[in-house]
Amino acid sequence: MAKKVKRGRHFLNVPGPSNVPDRVLRAMDHPLIDHRSQEFFDLVKEVCAGYRRIFRTESAVAIYPSSGTGAWEAALLNTLSPGDKILGFESGQFATLWKVMAERHGLSVDFMPGDWRHPVDPAEIERRLVADKSHSIKAVTIVHSETSTGIACSIPGVRQAIDRAKHPALLMVDSVSSAGVHEYRHDEWGVDVTICGSQKGLMLPPGLGYNVVSKKALAANKTAKLPRAYFDWQPMVDANQSGSFPYTPPISMFFAAKEAIAMMEEEGLDNIVARHERLAEATRRAVRAWGLEILCAEPRAYANALTAIMVPEGVNADAVRAAILEHYDVSLGAGLGKVFGKVFRIGHLGWTNELMVIGAIAGVEMGMGVAGVKFKSGGTQAAIDYLGGNSAAHGR
Amino acid sequence: MAKKVKRGRHFLNVPGPSNVPDRVLRAMDHPLIDHRSQEFFDLVKEVCAGYRRIFRTESAVAIYPSSGTGAWEAALLNTLSPGDKILGFESGQFATLWKVMAERHGLSVDFMPGDWRHPVDPAEIERRLVADKSHSIKAVTIVHSETSTGIACSIPGVRQAIDRAKHPALLMVDSVSSAGVHEYRHDEWGVDVTICGSQKGLMLPPGLGYNVVSKKALAANKTAKLPRAYFDWQPMVDANQSGSFPYTPPISMFFAAKEAIAMMEEEGLDNIVARHERLAEATRRAVRAWGLEILCAEPRAYANALTAIMVPEGVNADAVRAAILEHYDVSLGAGLGKVFGKVFRIGHLGWTNELMVIGAIAGVEMGMGVAGVKFKSGGTQAAIDYLGGNSAAHGR
Amino acid sequence: MAKKVKRGRHFLNVPGPSNVPDRVLRAMDHPLIDHRSQEFFDLVKEVCAGYRRIFRTESAVAIYPSSGTGAWEAALLNTLSPGDKILGFESGQFATLWKVMAERHGLSVDFMPGDWRHPVDPAEIERRLVADKSHSIKAVTIVHSETSTGIACSIPGVRQAIDRAKHPALLMVDSVSSAGVHEYRHDEWGVDVTICGSQKGLMLPPGLGYNVVSKKALAANKTAKLPRAYFDWQPMVDANQSGSFPYTPPISMFFAAKEAIAMMEEEGLDNIVARHERLAEATRRAVRAWGLEILCAEPRAYANALTAIMVPEGVNADAVRAAILEHYDVSLGAGLGKVFGKVFRIGHLGWTNELMVIGAIAGVEMGMGVAGVKFKSGGTQAAIDYLGGNSAAHGR
Amino acid sequence: MAKKVKRGRHFLNVPGPSNVPDRVLRAMDHPLIDHRSQEFFDLVKEVCAGYRRIFRTESAVAIYPSSGTGAWEAALLNTLSPGDKILGFESGQFATLWKVMAERHGLSVDFMPGDWRHPVDPAEIERRLVADKSHSIKAVTIVHSETSTGIACSIPGVRQAIDRAKHPALLMVDSVSSAGVHEYRHDEWGVDVTICGSQKGLMLPPGLGYNVVSKKALAANKTAKLPRAYFDWQPMVDANQSGSFPYTPPISMFFAAKEAIAMMEEEGLDNIVARHERLAEATRRAVRAWGLEILCAEPRAYANALTAIMVPEGVNADAVRAAILEHYDVSLGAGLGKVFGKVFRIGHLGWTNELMVIGAIAGVEMGMGVAGVKFKSGGTQAAIDYLGGNSAAHGR
Repeated sequence: MAKKVKRGRHFLNVPGPSNVPDRVLRAMDHPLIDHRSQEFFDLVKEVCAGYRRIFRTESAVAIYPSSGTGAWEAALLNTLSPGDKILGFESGQFATLWKVMAERHGLSVDFMPGDWRHPVDPAEIERRLVADKSHSIKAVTIVHSETSTGIACSIPGVRQAIDRAKHPALLMVDSVSSAGVHEYRHDEWGVDVTICGSQKGLMLPPGLGYNVVSKKALAANKTAKLPRAYFDWQPMVDANQSGSFPYTPPISMFFAAKEAIAMMEEEGLDNIVARHERLAEATRRAVRAWGLEILCAEPRAYANALTAIMVPEGVNADAVRAAILEHYDVSLGAGLGKVFGKVFRIGHLGWTNELMVIGAIAGVEMGMGVAGVKFKSGGTQAAIDYLGGNSAAHGR
Repeated sequence: MAKKVKRGRHFLNVPGPSNVPDRVLRAMDHPLIDHRSQEFFDLVKEVCAGYRRIFRTESAVAIYPSSGTGAWEAALLNTLSPGDKILGFESGQFATLWKVMAERHGLSVDFMPGDWRHPVDPAEIERRLVADKSHSIKAVTIVHSETSTGIACSIPGVRQAIDRAKHPALLMVDSVSSAGVHEYRHDEWGVDVTICGSQKGLMLPPGLGYNVVSKKALAANKTAKLPRAYFDWQPMVDANQSGSFPYTPPISMFFAAKEAIAMMEEEGLDNIVARHERLAEATRRAVRAWGLEILCAEPRAYANALTAIMVPEGVNADAVRAAILEHYDVSLGAGLGKVFGKVFRIGHLGWTNELMVIGAIAGVEMGMGVAGVKFKSGGTQAAIDYLGGNSAAHGR
Repeated sequence: MAKKVKRGRHFLNVPGPSNVPDRVLRAMDHPLIDHRSQEFFDLVKEVCAGYRRIFRTESAVAIYPSSGTGAWEAALLNTLSPGDKILGFESGQFATLWKVMAERHGLSVDFMPGDWRHPVDPAEIERRLVADKSHSIKAVTIVHSETSTGIACSIPGVRQAIDRAKHPALLMVDSVSSAGVHEYRHDEWGVDVTICGSQKGLMLPPGLGYNVVSKKALAANKTAKLPRAYFDWQPMVDANQSGSFPYTPPISMFFAAKEAIAMMEEEGLDNIVARHERLAEATRRAVRAWGLEILCAEPRAYANALTAIMVPEGVNADAVRAAILEHYDVSLGAGLGKVFGKVFRIGHLGWTNELMVIGAIAGVEMGMGVAGVKFKSGGTQAAIDYLGGNSAAHGR
Repeated sequence: MAKKVKRGRHFLNVPGPSNVPDRVLRAMDHPLIDHRSQEFFDLVKEVCAGYRRIFRTESAVAIYPSSGTGAWEAALLNTLSPGDKILGFESGQFATLWKVMAERHGLSVDFMPGDWRHPVDPAEIERRLVADKSHSIKAVTIVHSETSTGIACSIPGVRQAIDRAKHPALLMVDSVSSAGVHEYRHDEWGVDVTICGSQKGLMLPPGLGYNVVSKKALAANKTAKLPRAYFDWQPMVDANQSGSFPYTPPISMFFAAKEAIAMMEEEGLDNIVARHERLAEATRRAVRAWGLEILCAEPRAYANALTAIMVPEGVNADAVRAAILEHYDVSLGAGLGKVFGKVFRIGHLGWTNELMVIGAIAGVEMGMGVAGVKFKSGGTQAAIDYLGGNSAAHGR
């Protein structure tokens, strides 16, 4: 049988990479320039300044040619020494992978267990930090929005826990799927290292990893002994002022970043967050109308970037996902790690809107039908009813 | 108040221009080349051959740097002489404009009246041709798919009427919104001149006008006396063999056309038609579920390219259209001419699919709510139920 | 033998289409939008205003989906009546083609003969107009920069001749290869219709034809009886105010035009002309250093857009051109019409600079060697010496 | 004074990033897709297979989201343990930076001194390896084509030296500016790790780092103890078979890589090398005609990618470079490290050809004039004479 030819736009609803705006793709379609020219230096400085505004920081933003995983590594290598202890929380697969990475670099991880359905309990952080009289814990690492489970932890809550414990540990936050999606305030929240990647709320292709670096983190950098070269902060921090990189940066991505930052600022950071909240709520209403369960069990911890949906017992979530892709050309996220086969994930982040999300929800609804999932019809209509009646789009 | 910033993709649901595939836009983003080079000659010949397959003809396809309106003019100027009579049918605004154009060129038009809700009656054509004993009628001009009303006339029906009347008139068909949307067979149906434009089912930007020219039409060209130069057929017909144009052709559009033709042939002409039929039916089911009326009153004459929707008495259709655009970022077609303010039109043609059409329908549903139109909720769900249960996508 | 694979950039040195800037190609790579939206209306009005500045006019600029040939036709159809007489000058192949077109539309052309090496003599125009006591001549048609020969006629000179003759004929000027290349002043020079195409000095792909229309020309339009519909001025003139077209305009080209106009205004019209003069002079110095002859025999009539080079007796210019293309990947213009085989043409117009022109000249020099042309080495060096010592680039 | 507006193409003649072909830029202008889809897996496998052919290896090619510097780090981290010794050679700035990186990771470097004008002496390598009775040297690290100096070392020569010494050290080769520029044979030459970056001969933007990994290197990987996570080989080696990455890869770069590989194979690897040799020789002839000196003092060690030119005593090379950029819009490489201010570098690598290189040479010639450098005129002409008389383009 011939391969099915898809027509019209693919609906890219994995929770990253997100849809890159045409404007950004076009910006990237630009002849290369000398990365040691004043023109490029100016571009870099402009891009760094833009990201400082987006992360709401006056600190430097180090930008690496890397994935978000590289940015995790940069955060660890630049602040810690072999044998140092960090405190983490099992919000899902990505928190787990970060922990594994830390261990590979010879760090010791105190990993607070989680059931992948609830956010971190700040009180538990406080308890462990208070118990750490010797201050052997050098950093608290938290995934703000856990892309594998759709759970958002409260960063202000974590910050307060650390403060209450009067503990000097650095606060490191993975904002990979929260920047440009949730409210995020690096300076005000007292984050020491914000880790991010380009391919989600920042509306770029994958290829850039970010570290936002507080003064306290920079001070830790002076004494941190984990070996590092590629991921060394110093030249990247300097690039915020000079525009000059220690090695050839991904020039095309900087053309793209300038445009994506402009688009984010045209919309306004608060409006971006409001849009994501609305689209996430519409999706959850569809799930509930279908009679299905959302993986995240605490409404106050719902992520804006994605919704992880639990399929009924006996159904293989990944087969459902594959059917939706095959029949309606919607890409969804698979369940990762512990929840493989049990959930699939709808991404509703980045450059998207009401109709794109409704289309994706409709594709899920129709595809679940094809796949023989038992569910109640009407989820798409529930989303429409919500977005039609409650949308900021028409000012109510 | 600040201008509202739109995010995510605009839903372009006017019945032309249609969405140009990214692949085609990229193909157009190509440095210019010499139009008198062998490379360009080869490209032109390949493109002409592709269009011959798409229009299902062995005749030549003349391609003009023009809109579809220019292609209308080319058809008239190349076959007729001052004072010649043609027989037309008032299927809607575009048929009317073509008539007006013919009169401006000194032709006499026998224009069969229509109510903009029904297709041509072939028996009436037959009657008029039989009555034309002197064969003063030189051409029958029919709009296959009338973009202003959503009415599709039967071209085989018209052909048979001409044949039954044993009348020598040329058959000229406007396929602007039917090519790549409805079944179309230039040779088999005995069409003499097919008129088309690039920006609808052919999945290109506007900028090319086409005439497919039968042998009989070419013979008429030898004696036709309307003055012409820019739109002269002969060099354009020759270009099918030589690749060479009499003036600088829109080179970028030929890069685009090659890619669009490739995409059409990958999908297959029959599959393209089936896809359009399915999407049109889904849209009509939504309209009926809303309790609204479709302008086209004869189901056998439904156009696949668009659906014109009548708004309730007392509602300004154009204000509804504007509200949908403002609040949900869907472009729709206004009512044109006689039906201005009474209908709006949803385009579902070209590079589109189930989810794109569902998104547009949802936008209409939500926007009608904002605009205060009285309608029954559930149209989008009706479309989903149809496409989910009846979609060729999952082989039922 | 395998087809030779070319690497690196092709040198496009035909005298049109010229190199379209990457910025403009990118601008064209934009999703289509509704041509009846406010967004598009605003774009059209902005583009029309830009072209009014470029043509230095307060009149309207009619923009057609057509080649420059279509714009010729528009100029004739909108101002003249069957049997009207026009006065033309044989500056080369394009002037001749325009004459042929006029005759096809039933006009009578008084065509002043030329030898393709000299510009029009304004005194001769004056003589013929003075002799035309009955004012049977309705228009004087002049090609400002004749792309086939590299001859530029003085439009102010022609204007003065008409004025001295106190003759009411319209002045129609083909600025296809002069706009954005030579100084051009529609209003100040009293031009009635300026005809242009997009693909040369205006730095766009082919696909737009322009008529700049004086008040006097608009008045003539009221009584002109040549039949017209597609090329009717009135709606296009109105589009300058409304942004609305009578048929679907080539939307992508308007995205491109906005960008190209911006680039032209960033550089400044005077700087554009100075750049073209410098590059043209460098090319001529190369030709002279090679010991070859320039077709244009009058230095004051040198075109800035191109240089037509006469090959030695017994050499086939077109074979030379083909050798240069094959071996060095430079596209050049062939000799057209009467000078076919006797000249080839180097285009140095539009988006180009010193090094691009030197590259092309070097390709010609090396290719002539391959082709066995007898010439003196050192033309490229002569161009370098001129551009190195005399370039506005370094402010001397 | 107003900023000078540049017109026409910038001449990008830094020795990397090189000019990315339009075809490749266009390929990158592609909507993002799910990196965990079969479509992406197939793309990755195809790209990896293509690079195996380009590096002439049957081993795996690990591809990182990184610069070439990241690929250096990957090579070291994956094969070595803290305290291991490596043998390097000071071919220039990049060899020096690699050494510094190794030291930062706790390795000990036996760095054979060089004067930045001569390639490594294989006999010296042999001598040091023979002396290393205990086999404490774990790897020999060589920069094939040193981008800072234009010196190419003989990799077969180094291989033979190791073999003659019967030493088990791994051979690691930096091919950043030699792949796609010089002949390169990973398997045949017995290279254990080839390090590369995307932005030079591979005709891509910066953003990908490569390690080609021999069986012997993979075996060393099992016992290597330097900590690593982001740069771990195993998942990247596996991706050659599975197409699956351990973290989000730079998807857009894989679209680009597929196209760049296709272009390389259309031309043919041998033809690519021959083209680079020819363009490099033309550049050197220009330098000699100017009476200037080439930094690389050994003709057998000339790099094909770039030519470093020594300016006369008392001249600041960087001021010359800046003048050439300002006046003729050519980007050149500055002198790096020890030769800063003493040399500038012309890149002639990647997607380039005769006329692009001649244009750049002409820009250098004219710009040196502006900058007041004492030199003999005629360098460009010397390049033309060479390329015109000796070019493979016309089959001699």
